[in-house]
Amino acid sequence: MKEITAELISIGNEVLAGYTVNTNATFLSQQLKNIGIAVKWVTTIADEADEIFNALEKANTRADIIVTTGGLGPTPDDITKATICKYFDTELYENPAALENLAQFISERGRSEKFLELNRGQALTPKSAQIIKNTIGTAPGLILQKNSSWFSFMPGVPREMKAMITGYFLPFLKTKYNLPKIKTEIMRTTGIPESRLYEILKDVIKAYPQFPFAFLPKQIGVDLRFRLTVIKSTDEKSWREFMDKIYAKAQKYIFTKDERDMEQVMVGLLSKKKLSLAIAESFTGGLIQDWITDVPGSSLVFKGGMVTYSNESKTKFIDVNNATINQYGAVSEATALEMVRGIQGKFKSDCAISTTGIAGPGGGSTEKPVGLCYVAVRYKEEEFVKKFNFGTERRINKMRGAMAGLEMLRRLII
Amino acid sequence: MKEITAELISIGNEVLAGYTVNTNATFLSQQLKNIGIAVKWVTTIADEADEIFNALEKANTRADIIVTTGGLGPTPDDITKATICKYFDTELYENPAALENLAQFISERGRSEKFLELNRGQALTPKSAQIIKNTIGTAPGLILQKNSSWFSFMPGVPREMKAMITGYFLPFLKTKYNLPKIKTEIMRTTGIPESRLYEILKDVIKAYPQFPFAFLPKQIGVDLRFRLTVIKSTDEKSWREFMDKIYAKAQKYIFTKDERDMEQVMVGLLSKKKLSLAIAESFTGGLIQDWITDVPGSSLVFKGGMVTYSNESKTKFIDVNNATINQYGAVSEATALEMVRGIQGKFKSDCAISTTGIAGPGGGSTEKPVGLCYVAVRYKEEEFVKKFNFGTERRINKMRGAMAGLEMLRRLII
Repeated sequence: MKEITAELISIGNEVLAGYTVNTNATFLSQQLKNIGIAVKWVTTIADEADEIFNALEKANTRADIIVTTGGLGPTPDDITKATICKYFDTELYENPAALENLAQFISERGRSEKFLELNRGQALTPKSAQIIKNTIGTAPGLILQKNSSWFSFMPGVPREMKAMITGYFLPFLKTKYNLPKIKTEIMRTTGIPESRLYEILKDVIKAYPQFPFAFLPKQIGVDLRFRLTVIKSTDEKSWREFMDKIYAKAQKYIFTKDERDMEQVMVGLLSKKKLSLAIAESFTGGLIQDWITDVPGSSLVFKGGMVTYSNESKTKFIDVNNATINQYGAVSEATALEMVRGIQGKFKSDCAISTTGIAGPGGGSTEKPVGLCYVAVRYKEEEFVKKFNFGTERRINKMRGAMAGLEMLRRLII
Repeated sequence: MKEITAELISIGNEVLAGYTVNTNATFLSQQLKNIGIAVKWVTTIADEADEIFNALEKANTRADIIVTTGGLGPTPDDITKATICKYFDTELYENPAALENLAQFISERGRSEKFLELNRGQALTPKSAQIIKNTIGTAPGLILQKNSSWFSFMPGVPREMKAMITGYFLPFLKTKYNLPKIKTEIMRTTGIPESRLYEILKDVIKAYPQFPFAFLPKQIGVDLRFRLTVIKSTDEKSWREFMDKIYAKAQKYIFTKDERDMEQVMVGLLSKKKLSLAIAESFTGGLIQDWITDVPGSSLVFKGGMVTYSNESKTKFIDVNNATINQYGAVSEATALEMVRGIQGKFKSDCAISTTGIAGPGGGSTEKPVGLCYVAVRYKEEEFVKKFNFGTERRINKMRGAMAGLEMLRRLII
């Protein structure tokens, strides 16, 4: 089966000026890869007729599919649409379907007649183009063909583009090409560096050389991304076997086998087991609570917590003993334990997490360097505390401490 | 003065697979723009010899400066370096300076002899290339010239690339081209949408058509980016006048005239005025505290706070009256005010912020819809409370609530 290749063209001065990060390309690459189409080129150019024309011409020499984002504006002198007409040797006309979509958008949002006049140009589309309805904004998407390549043109607004891609363009491509059947799986790990994870897994990896997969290291864990192009029906069975063996080896570090983040896993676990949570943060400064409360429905399991940034707040509000701080310091195993007991007691929660440490970049000493962190967790009467030596970057330290707290509690519960 | 143009080439299968967002391009575009060089093309290609060769050839036809990132590996069969040699008609040799840098890296980090052997290939560089020392990693950067274009090649690791760009390559370019003198300024606003801001500023904008500038809207505010290419000495004076008038019109909404984030502005303001802060969060779930504790040195002004996610935690810990919650609800002006008074009293802080609301996506009603939020602030005996109707996206709601709290306190203090 010949590989189907794609080129992404972003038209936009904002990206070239460094004002905007091109996350559209990331999304498109993932989506196309998931249906077996390889993005081989990503090109960003200015919103200028010559540049657009040249980019289309170049893309046609090498890619089967070209996805262009951005550069579609409401004015009749729109450069992109004029260039499309020139390149595809066609002309603009007021497309009745596009005009109807525009009218529908306006009536649904209660926009004025003036809005219609300002945006009427959006209904002008090249005669030989199919249009893709925009369910969110006013500019329709376009599909055209030349020399056996399919071109699509979409707005640069991520939400509008994404809706068109998943709702229309991917299904469209599946009807045009005999695409391979692709399976993807993910396992997300934390608490183990990439090199150690590789050591643990290398025997399995070597036993199944036909199944390549990606290690994706991030600050707070390593994701494993598996992808199978199904050629014959037995492939999937041995791929499952392979992944089961990977899972068996690394199970301890795998917190999810889906796309969820740790905080979603935690809220899910607590909900399922009907457990409540309270959190006392010093080192992580509110980050764990911020993560947890990002999860819809977290209010059913998360009772609340404190950011006890000063010694006084530790002793006054969550019953850490002055003597403990005096003897061992605020950054100590003993303080972390008293914090986690204190917050659990105050909130009468089933589970609790505490963190204390030196986030940096200042405040370190030889004995207690920047990055030193104690994390404690409690699940009913059981408790566990661990010392970490993170790095020197404050934000990354906070993230690693937050991840450690959630992972320690997850392991204690399961 | 002829415009100097640049092309960025990213070599990397990770970007094409959608695993990595190309933030390197964003950084490089900004940095080059700030010294008067316009990035006109950003190209991402696979780590394959033909692709690299073709991209270099194409870039040479159109750009003065080509910055290539990624694809530099430690192995001797490195595709990028082999392709560079082919394209520039040169060959690899073991560069003494690069080898010395590698040895220095190894001794500073206490790495083993084995590490040296594994990475020795990094010291192989094209004979006609100048090298850029890598102060953070092992792969040196390269500079070569062809047909009057300057090519540079750098690792894709952002920290390594950034250090080479600011430390070496930008100063290098300044010696090679007669670049215009560029001035940039920023004003960051919050609490006003782009369209209203434009209304306020449009008379000034129309009076100074020679000074274009960018409105950069984000979820939590609109940044104004000013850029002046100094042609004659009087330009700067009238540009300053222009910006002073912009500032006078929008002063109320401008929280900083530099690159700082709101939390940095807040910690700076509190430090300068020797004021302490405590925070009680419900709607924002810890986000304000997370932001504040991201700022190094925040522990000197931030005493701590609570995430009072349940009604019980509001009444038990920060003295919100049960009667208030029963009469007005937890999401009410009265509760927000009792929260901010309560947290200030508990922590004996000079200033305090509280938030309560319905972050969504669930939990809304006709009377109290998703996005409804009350924010209260106190500065000593003065207090202020405000009602907001944000949108339906939970994370964005939290961010807007957090920003509102900090901005309200900032205005109350100044």
